[in-house]
Amino acid sequence: MTRPRLHSYFRSSTSYRLRIALNLKGVETDYIAHHLRTGAQRFESYLKLNPQGLVPSLELPDESVVLIQSLPIIEYLEETIPEPPLLPADPIGRARVRALAQMIACEIHPVNNLRVLNELRQSFGADDDAVADWFRHWVVETFGPLEALLFGSPDTGTFCHGDNPGLADICLVAQVANNQRFQVDMSPYPTIRRIYDACMERHEFQQAAPANQPDAE
Amino acid sequence: MTRPRLHSYFRSSTSYRLRIALNLKGVETDYIAHHLRTGAQRFESYLKLNPQGLVPSLELPDESVVLIQSLPIIEYLEETIPEPPLLPADPIGRARVRALAQMIACEIHPVNNLRVLNELRQSFGADDDAVADWFRHWVVETFGPLEALLFGSPDTGTFCHGDNPGLADICLVAQVANNQRFQVDMSPYPTIRRIYDACMERHEFQQAAPANQPDAE
Repeated sequence: MTRPRLHSYFRSSTSYRLRIALNLKGVETDYIAHHLRTGAQRFESYLKLNPQGLVPSLELPDESVVLIQSLPIIEYLEETIPEPPLLPADPIGRARVRALAQMIACEIHPVNNLRVLNELRQSFGADDDAVADWFRHWVVETFGPLEALLFGSPDTGTFCHGDNPGLADICLVAQVANNQRFQVDMSPYPTIRRIYDACMERHEFQQAAPANQPDAE
Repeated sequence: MTRPRLHSYFRSSTSYRLRIALNLKGVETDYIAHHLRTGAQRFESYLKLNPQGLVPSLELPDESVVLIQSLPIIEYLEETIPEPPLLPADPIGRARVRALAQMIACEIHPVNNLRVLNELRQSFGADDDAVADWFRHWVVETFGPLEALLFGSPDTGTFCHGDNPGLADICLVAQVANNQRFQVDMSPYPTIRRIYDACMERHEFQQAAPANQPDAE
């Protein structure tokens, strides 16, 4: 193995985050697809690499190390490949960017990912409408404050923090893409939309999009 | 204001995380209680500080800055008060500790926090038993791999990573404390239990516990 192996699923929004970060840092990887809907990521061979059986993970070439969890992997990239930076230089700015990222990564995505939606169906008999309502509820709950924080801050520029894309933009783009599958009304969030559009003009974001992955359906 | 204001709720496990980190770093704060069950954290005055209306947040004394989201605030403390470190020095070790922390912060806590459990009751008529089953399901789903990662790694010491407590221990303790409210069977997780016990021998963890807060009931 000469370059890192990216364990990914095209539609996984946490994999999408990591793909964007790898592109921004200019890291080439070998793409290993894991099909979440058929549970392929739970195969024994993958569980040996990642006991959680989740994607993404990043297998490093030299050190037989497997990194897991999208945001810690991105922080690792940031620490080992400083340019271009995905976090600002000052601690308060870094705390702001990490908080914007974490609002999406902790308040929206975990409650709305595939295995939680499946559990709603199984435990509570939720149908498609109920699942979609649940999904939109948690997006709205956090996108309101997120829009307020972005709109109201002089730190917001072309992107979430200044005029270069970073960690918060990565999470924002992956979430907005996910929203499209549940017809979330984006009209209350003009700043989020503007930032999403600015990101999607860049090839690092485009190439990371679900539709452009080898396992896209 | 001469020292930071900690906006907290005694029973909030994300507030618990931040209280431990502040104690480990030796930061004294003024404690401002927000009662989550009565929705006090949604008062207008607090929403001006934190549009999400969640706890914890940390109001800094000098710069009229309000930091939000527990893990980004702890990373801020780590960057501005390096000793004692809550993350190891090497990037792979840092990625490991952050991943262990994030497994709890992203896979367990968000799905099991108060507002999600309330939503299960409201949207799906979940009763106490169904809510407890849901809670335990997500703990078991992640504590299994977490135990495997901790048990199987030479990096694990007295604490999650080596012999000093850090970011992963902080998240672990707050989650284990939360589990006690839902009678989670901890017998399958001897390493997690051992680390929890080691943490709770330290005054920084004891003093941060829910029962020792000014707003404890």
